[in-house]
Amino acid sequence: MTTDTINKISKSPVTGKEYDIPSVLDDKAGIDAFIALHPGKKVIVVQGLGFVGSVMGLVVANALTEEYAVIGIDLPTPGSYWKIRSISEGVFPVIASDPKIEQYYQNALKKKNYYATYDSYAYSKADVVVVDINLDVQKKSAANKDLEGYNVDMTPFRKAIEAIGNNCKEDVLVLVETTVPPGTAQKIVRPILEENLAKRGLATDKIKVGHSYERVMPGPKYIDSIQNFYRVFAGTDDKSAEAVETFLRTVIRTDEYPLTKLGNTNATEMAKVLENSFRAMNIAFMVEWSRFAEEAGVDIYEVVNAIRMRPTHKNIMLPGLGVGGYCLTKDPLLASWARMNLFGSDEKLGQSEKGVHINDKMPLYAFEYLQSQYNGSLEGKKVLLLGVSYLNDVGDTRYTPVEGFYDQLEIEGCEIALHDPHVKYWEEKDILVNQNIEELLQQSYDVIVITTGHKDYRNNSSLIEKIKQQPSCVVYDTIGVLTNEEIRSLSEKHTVKVIGRGDL
Amino acid sequence: MTTDTINKISKSPVTGKEYDIPSVLDDKAGIDAFIALHPGKKVIVVQGLGFVGSVMGLVVANALTEEYAVIGIDLPTPGSYWKIRSISEGVFPVIASDPKIEQYYQNALKKKNYYATYDSYAYSKADVVVVDINLDVQKKSAANKDLEGYNVDMTPFRKAIEAIGNNCKEDVLVLVETTVPPGTAQKIVRPILEENLAKRGLATDKIKVGHSYERVMPGPKYIDSIQNFYRVFAGTDDKSAEAVETFLRTVIRTDEYPLTKLGNTNATEMAKVLENSFRAMNIAFMVEWSRFAEEAGVDIYEVVNAIRMRPTHKNIMLPGLGVGGYCLTKDPLLASWARMNLFGSDEKLGQSEKGVHINDKMPLYAFEYLQSQYNGSLEGKKVLLLGVSYLNDVGDTRYTPVEGFYDQLEIEGCEIALHDPHVKYWEEKDILVNQNIEELLQQSYDVIVITTGHKDYRNNSSLIEKIKQQPSCVVYDTIGVLTNEEIRSLSEKHTVKVIGRGDL
Repeated sequence: MTTDTINKISKSPVTGKEYDIPSVLDDKAGIDAFIALHPGKKVIVVQGLGFVGSVMGLVVANALTEEYAVIGIDLPTPGSYWKIRSISEGVFPVIASDPKIEQYYQNALKKKNYYATYDSYAYSKADVVVVDINLDVQKKSAANKDLEGYNVDMTPFRKAIEAIGNNCKEDVLVLVETTVPPGTAQKIVRPILEENLAKRGLATDKIKVGHSYERVMPGPKYIDSIQNFYRVFAGTDDKSAEAVETFLRTVIRTDEYPLTKLGNTNATEMAKVLENSFRAMNIAFMVEWSRFAEEAGVDIYEVVNAIRMRPTHKNIMLPGLGVGGYCLTKDPLLASWARMNLFGSDEKLGQSEKGVHINDKMPLYAFEYLQSQYNGSLEGKKVLLLGVSYLNDVGDTRYTPVEGFYDQLEIEGCEIALHDPHVKYWEEKDILVNQNIEELLQQSYDVIVITTGHKDYRNNSSLIEKIKQQPSCVVYDTIGVLTNEEIRSLSEKHTVKVIGRGDL
Repeated sequence: MTTDTINKISKSPVTGKEYDIPSVLDDKAGIDAFIALHPGKKVIVVQGLGFVGSVMGLVVANALTEEYAVIGIDLPTPGSYWKIRSISEGVFPVIASDPKIEQYYQNALKKKNYYATYDSYAYSKADVVVVDINLDVQKKSAANKDLEGYNVDMTPFRKAIEAIGNNCKEDVLVLVETTVPPGTAQKIVRPILEENLAKRGLATDKIKVGHSYERVMPGPKYIDSIQNFYRVFAGTDDKSAEAVETFLRTVIRTDEYPLTKLGNTNATEMAKVLENSFRAMNIAFMVEWSRFAEEAGVDIYEVVNAIRMRPTHKNIMLPGLGVGGYCLTKDPLLASWARMNLFGSDEKLGQSEKGVHINDKMPLYAFEYLQSQYNGSLEGKKVLLLGVSYLNDVGDTRYTPVEGFYDQLEIEGCEIALHDPHVKYWEEKDILVNQNIEELLQQSYDVIVITTGHKDYRNNSSLIEKIKQQPSCVVYDTIGVLTNEEIRSLSEKHTVKVIGRGDL
């Protein structure tokens, strides 16, 4: 069967190399051999080799005050197996502009202290397990335009914790770094571990469970965002908190960035989702003001820039196409879900949920605004999207708002071309992205949309010149990238529309 | 008739002195005499002698690069007439901790260039009229617990602009500083002025109308908050914008705090209400998280302090009793009202309105939480409130959230004692406030509530000792003023409750 064949292969988006997923899943020998290389060293197992875990593994392998044997573990699935192989073959599975990544990786290769596996047997060797797996929220798709429902399926997370509980030593420290619903360490992780230890006839009072969240930011300061930044932590009991602190002191620059200990893990878990909810909320807050600005003939960008002169208002947001990335799009929902499902409240976090829904609808609004420029139909229009990444100047397409916008254009029957200087392959949509803007602009378009605020699109006079050479079209800036001068210049020939501004 | 007699008297809350409001309202001679003292000087009329106008008048009388003759004008009403008399008698009508106030006032007295009147004849002499009157939103009262309705009655504001239009020169600059619904300068002020000029047979194309908002902050930097701070401005046309800029350059330290010119007055008007809505929203955002923290046994203060270590999150708010003051409680509503009533949108600013309503309900929540500690009834309880001001360390009771809390206690039948080191007389409630905490604590109370975060209540070991000497009572901290150590100490004898924290 085709599906079967596909499922047995895991392809690296970094190198393009394909790996057969082994049918017999046993890496005990490999793990034992790795451990044997590092006698006397503590074994740190990092669960999850994604954007956080793989790099956290690097940071631990390059710990400041202790030599660790680090094992990164992920699932033998098409989406993850290649990461395991990649690490063992000398190719780090994350592409990042931070030169420290390669430096730390080469150092780990030299020290041979960063091993990767899929075998849960690794947990049996661990002194510390750092949990860096995903915990996703299931939302409705943008296509049906009704975005207010969501679900938090804890099953994969529970299974991952069970895998630890089925194998770990009775006195292991399990340090959850995953962004979880508040209450998870106390009400889910610890009970699962205790239950599985008890099943194996082991003591349940020696286990240590803590929570400490990272504030990782993929990009030029990737490593620093883990190693050189403030950390908040807590334990499910005093012993756990102490163990977390001891461990973190060996890997984080706590001299410059002191640790903050909170009263319990509910508090640290809440701090993380509150932090991201604050940001999500501040974006959502601006949405209705952007609409008001459009109605009142106001340039919201100049208004926001004026307001930002106040030190207390520096983080007021600008309008845009929408909100993407892994955190702001789901963390408020994790919190709201937890309030009702882990703490039995009959009230959700209504405002915070509403904020996410408002943000989720931003790409739809952007689409409908464009549609209204064509009397309600964009069928057959040739559209060029400048940018697919969710964030400027990085190649990260996770939950990018460009997707919802793209989907609507596709449903509408548009012919869509894509450009992004940082994205060659749009994984979630399985589409190649052109990186050659000159080539793309040799064709003509009905609509050219700026969908990401990359530097490449800002103050780029040659880009403006090339767009001017296009036959009369609609230039649609959903981010506020164009300057007044550029708008004036483009308006000589084209129709220019900017989200958050009245008629231009 | 009693009402009549009362209405003829205006009492100064600063000196206690009572003034008879004259029955014949004519101050032409006074105004003419004042003008005659200042030949060749431009006449600046400041409309409104409240918290902003009276001090703006001082700043203009002490302008940086030009000598002006300043006339402050207010209504001959019981609430305002005393201000006019007070200024002419050498007592500035605003009590403030900023020493510059008295210094500027003494300087103006010496130069004799700050006159006060009630007579609209003053507008006929004005080169510039600065509008600093109130524009209020009418809300439902806290007592009926249904706070979601509101109304914006523009009548008093329109009348004030008409008074200018009925008297002013045809080329006067009317600079609106009042926080107004976006659209007001263009759609209300300018048309009213033009209409009244036309009625008087004058040209309507010479008038100049602009908007520039202050960011005044009563307190120790009162004058600086007007004179030494960034200003945003715009005109209803180019000529108006130019006139506003020229005027502001003479009174504001624009060398250090450059002016920001926006595209139109809708934009400046929007900037002001957006700025305050952002802050109101950030407070409202925290409300449901505080409830969640209480449910989850989390200390929200330690969580927020941890989050504030991020430079992008420094302004995340703490929970409290509620939101007070003149701006945050109404500005989002002014904007929402404008969107629908001045720009014909069928959508309000729903989130921002919701934010205000959430904030307005905070005192009710605080009351109900306390009530729940007494099985639903506080009847006959002796309650001491520490703080009536809406803001710590100032004596400002305008729209203080303590009022809603106080009202509920009163309805409930409590015996209420009040303390505030900065408030002797609670104007809005017409109650005297005790400033002697020792005296107050000689009596015993069932509940002691910290309702304002004054310095006097923070790290005050003698206060804690005195509270400890009370018979067993409930100590209720609605602001998060008490430290963990203080809570522990008080808990030995009393029941301590803190908003935004789980069981202590």
